[in-house]
Amino acid sequence: MIDTVTGEATLSGLGECFNLPEANVSWKINGEKHEYKLDDSGNHHQQAVDRIVALLEELGIKQDIVAVGHRVVHGGEKFTKTVKIDEQIMQEIEDLKDLAPLHNPAHVIGMRAAVKAFPTLAQYAVFDTAFHQSMPEKAYTYAISKELYKEYGIRRYGFHGTSHYYVSREAAKMVNKEAEESSFITVHLGNGASVCAVKNGKSVDTSMGFTPLAGLMMGTRCGDLDPSILEFLLKKGWTEERLHKELVGNSGFLGVSGLTSDCRGIIEAMENGNEAAKLAFDMFNYRVAKYIASYMVSLDELDGIVFTGGIGENSMQVRSEVLKSLKIFGYREDEAANADARFGNKGVITQPNTPVAMVIPTNEEWVIAKESMALLHA
Amino acid sequence: MIDTVTGEATLSGLGECFNLPEANVSWKINGEKHEYKLDDSGNHHQQAVDRIVALLEELGIKQDIVAVGHRVVHGGEKFTKTVKIDEQIMQEIEDLKDLAPLHNPAHVIGMRAAVKAFPTLAQYAVFDTAFHQSMPEKAYTYAISKELYKEYGIRRYGFHGTSHYYVSREAAKMVNKEAEESSFITVHLGNGASVCAVKNGKSVDTSMGFTPLAGLMMGTRCGDLDPSILEFLLKKGWTEERLHKELVGNSGFLGVSGLTSDCRGIIEAMENGNEAAKLAFDMFNYRVAKYIASYMVSLDELDGIVFTGGIGENSMQVRSEVLKSLKIFGYREDEAANADARFGNKGVITQPNTPVAMVIPTNEEWVIAKESMALLHA
Repeated sequence: MIDTVTGEATLSGLGECFNLPEANVSWKINGEKHEYKLDDSGNHHQQAVDRIVALLEELGIKQDIVAVGHRVVHGGEKFTKTVKIDEQIMQEIEDLKDLAPLHNPAHVIGMRAAVKAFPTLAQYAVFDTAFHQSMPEKAYTYAISKELYKEYGIRRYGFHGTSHYYVSREAAKMVNKEAEESSFITVHLGNGASVCAVKNGKSVDTSMGFTPLAGLMMGTRCGDLDPSILEFLLKKGWTEERLHKELVGNSGFLGVSGLTSDCRGIIEAMENGNEAAKLAFDMFNYRVAKYIASYMVSLDELDGIVFTGGIGENSMQVRSEVLKSLKIFGYREDEAANADARFGNKGVITQPNTPVAMVIPTNEEWVIAKESMALLHA
Repeated sequence: MIDTVTGEATLSGLGECFNLPEANVSWKINGEKHEYKLDDSGNHHQQAVDRIVALLEELGIKQDIVAVGHRVVHGGEKFTKTVKIDEQIMQEIEDLKDLAPLHNPAHVIGMRAAVKAFPTLAQYAVFDTAFHQSMPEKAYTYAISKELYKEYGIRRYGFHGTSHYYVSREAAKMVNKEAEESSFITVHLGNGASVCAVKNGKSVDTSMGFTPLAGLMMGTRCGDLDPSILEFLLKKGWTEERLHKELVGNSGFLGVSGLTSDCRGIIEAMENGNEAAKLAFDMFNYRVAKYIASYMVSLDELDGIVFTGGIGENSMQVRSEVLKSLKIFGYREDEAANADARFGNKGVITQPNTPVAMVIPTNEEWVIAKESMALLHA
């Protein structure tokens, strides 16, 4: 539950492990964490929504809610902006299940549960892909047969759209420009990670692709890879399932270090002399820096590099190394400012009179709430 | 047959379609082309070498040959420089067939035929991968489980090494620096295409990877791709074989345009208003520019961008568009110089007092000959 004016979350929560014995919902209110275990009577989505509704009633705040916003991973080429949910929209979101088989059908289950729980409220779908629908054809097209695009919709879609959108807007404010007259390279580094070139307020390229597996190295995902590696392993007798599990769940920080998918753990191990962790750290930063540099060609001018996401907001080490790699372009870290811009603090982290890099904590929930409100009042 | 001092080729030739009815050798001498069809009695490698030897005898130049150099596609991690061929070396090259199943065994067949034909001459193997063995670990490691590297040797190897080596040396001369004190981004654009970051004379990163499929968009190859696309098509019932054929032989310029794999054909169609050809052209240039920019972070300073290969040496349109994309870094095309640097002419193609880009025709055969001579005299 979020205040659309301030972005403050009265109540925030998480449902996890649906359809597993560990299924639960957890929430935070007034800084206190609570957890509720779901039972095995089925439909965990409905159970979770029911628990939240009961909670809102107990707290006496249910009547304050004026709209429900749903985050949806994949909007395909159909959804280029936030839409009001009705039966047809839910069907269209479900129809995109080929592109996001794990996410889109689950989103619709959640929507149906929420519609049942809040029958009088308008509900909206906010898409992770929508912000990137402005990419030019040369950026979203893969160098494969055009029939594969026509038949299966294989193209770059990009994800983390609400985050790239939000921080590019906040960044424009920080350099006193209008969003439409400013250009940034936004770097969302979390367990998933992506870079976006934002030109005059619009996404013109991004590192995730057809799926969120592509681009940067991530916690457990491989990012960019020579496609022949998949063919090679298939020839070695690997099944598609094993390959998928390996590239999505056993790669990235975890695969290279053999230790952990968590960047903090990587840095700690590296500081204790672990060489595989040092390699994972170096690879991660090097790839981030290369993507940033490559997106400079997508822009006519660059008002700043923006770090966000769990790693981007908190790891001064990652930011420091990335800026060192960008030395050839004139970037110079302001060490004190870089150390300050953590744990929710925003700020410019480069020295005066050098090209600008900054940290801006993302707030995807606020974007979802604001987009929903804007449509409600339209 | 090449003069190691001048790089002039007295005789140059090509064997094609071995093990097919169309098998032939063709050669060029004094500007005249000749072709000789091989018969179906088997062992086309031996037949081809026999024909060449007979030709050298007819021309009375066989005795001028002092060494034989063999280009080898894959040297794995074993071969970091040119080596003299003996039985053990041939076995080791064959042992790398897992990494280059089509090429390495065929190389060894050719070597055995040449050893038989020139039993008194020393023979050398020059590897496409060797120049890139100087890449740092963070550049050659993929973000996948380290066990896959240990067990199968899955890492970035890079190719076109002799070309990147040669043009970076020639480029150093053009800016009056020692190779060891200069840094370039070398861009080999032909039917296959790759970019290389050359720091103080050494390769520190390159766009081809585990195989020559990765990196830039090429004539018929897809280059970089979201790995999930392969999984997606496998789930749609595609076989590995179909997938391989599609990505290697039906992608790139050919796949996107639906017309041709030849850059000249793409430009011609584009100039006649074909939109798919325009898209292919734009994608190709955009990707080249992004790779160049990304490799700037691999270098401390940059003495020049070097274009080479069939497209790099001849297409002023491609170079012009790539330089326009690099405008943000200060590159400015010198239109007259760009038009002059074609058809074998080298030259700087950027305006005075702007960052340098140049064209240098590659000469891989000369590198092979010089490397062989150096070892012969060592």
